[in-house]
Amino acid sequence: MAHIKLDEKLPGIRGLFAFRPETAMPMSELAEVLLHTPGTLSMAERELIATYVSSQNDCFYCQSSHGAIAAIHLEGNEELVRQVKQNFEQAGVSEKLKALLAIAGNVQKGGKNVTAEDVERARQQGASDLEIHDTVLIAAAFCMYNRYVDGLATWAPQDADSYRQRAGTVARDGYLKSMQAYVKSVQATVSGQ
Amino acid sequence: MAHIKLDEKLPGIRGLFAFRPETAMPMSELAEVLLHTPGTLSMAERELIATYVSSQNDCFYCQSSHGAIAAIHLEGNEELVRQVKQNFEQAGVSEKLKALLAIAGNVQKGGKNVTAEDVERARQQGASDLEIHDTVLIAAAFCMYNRYVDGLATWAPQDADSYRQRAGTVARDGYLKSMQAYVKSVQATVSGQ
Repeated sequence: MAHIKLDEKLPGIRGLFAFRPETAMPMSELAEVLLHTPGTLSMAERELIATYVSSQNDCFYCQSSHGAIAAIHLEGNEELVRQVKQNFEQAGVSEKLKALLAIAGNVQKGGKNVTAEDVERARQQGASDLEIHDTVLIAAAFCMYNRYVDGLATWAPQDADSYRQRAGTVARDGYLKSMQAYVKSVQATVSGQ
Repeated sequence: MAHIKLDEKLPGIRGLFAFRPETAMPMSELAEVLLHTPGTLSMAERELIATYVSSQNDCFYCQSSHGAIAAIHLEGNEELVRQVKQNFEQAGVSEKLKALLAIAGNVQKGGKNVTAEDVERARQQGASDLEIHDTVLIAAAFCMYNRYVDGLATWAPQDADSYRQRAGTVARDGYLKSMQAYVKSVQATVSGQ
């Protein structure tokens, strides 16, 4: 049971977003910019970074949600998502993404763990300043989302199918549109009462 | 030296905000809602939570910035800020704030470290669901801000006076207005070129 009273129908961060729309909006905007706007890192790559950090933080809801979204961007390759979580250095991803995942893994441990060598390795593989910046911020942001979801003891569905289903909407519409649609539906319910 | 090329005049998160205004806006909005909008926890209490988590994450820039802002809200009581960072259980703050700081400290270690007993202690001291929620999210958010600042190896002024000076503006105007004023000044510089 969650540490505070939430809408029991909504799992993970969705129950928290419904509880506090004022913080949900900027948190969704941040996810939108980092994960869903056009960029030189593909959406699949960025979702893999988010999934990896969430798995290092042992956040079941976040690693399942973002793992499912990553898989959709990878045309259903759930096996690759599993490889990245288990041992990304041996996974079937680019050397550049491996270098970025190494940076993300060190951010997860604490900001000061990122070394000049980590950054140099990424540069050697062609990573730009913006890509290094976004990798660090995605990793840092998931250290927030993960702690938010688990720190308030929200519940998480245990079946992979419910994550696959929701992931389709988010992979298509992004984080902000999904959130705005949700806020509208809540407002309609409230004004209809 | 920072891991990426930043404006050298701007320390800590300010250099990063200038580098990536798209993420700076939602990050500033989140700080505004959590730390500077009216609420049942005072701004001083919320800044103390932010300062404590930043000190546990060993982020010099963030603990100095938010410690200075907290001190302004506390009418200059920098000694109290030091006490909270060193040992909040013995500091001259309310029993309710001590219980919330204990929750924040456990969020810093990882979301799953927050126990039902931590939450019950806060409730016994009169904390509401919203106050518990905001405490967890402030702590989680500073696990992001701290990792962002240190993960990209930004520089931090070493003298307390420069933090005191900047803190006056933020304590008065908040995070969003300070950020918007900054974006405007950058746009003016760009259009003037």
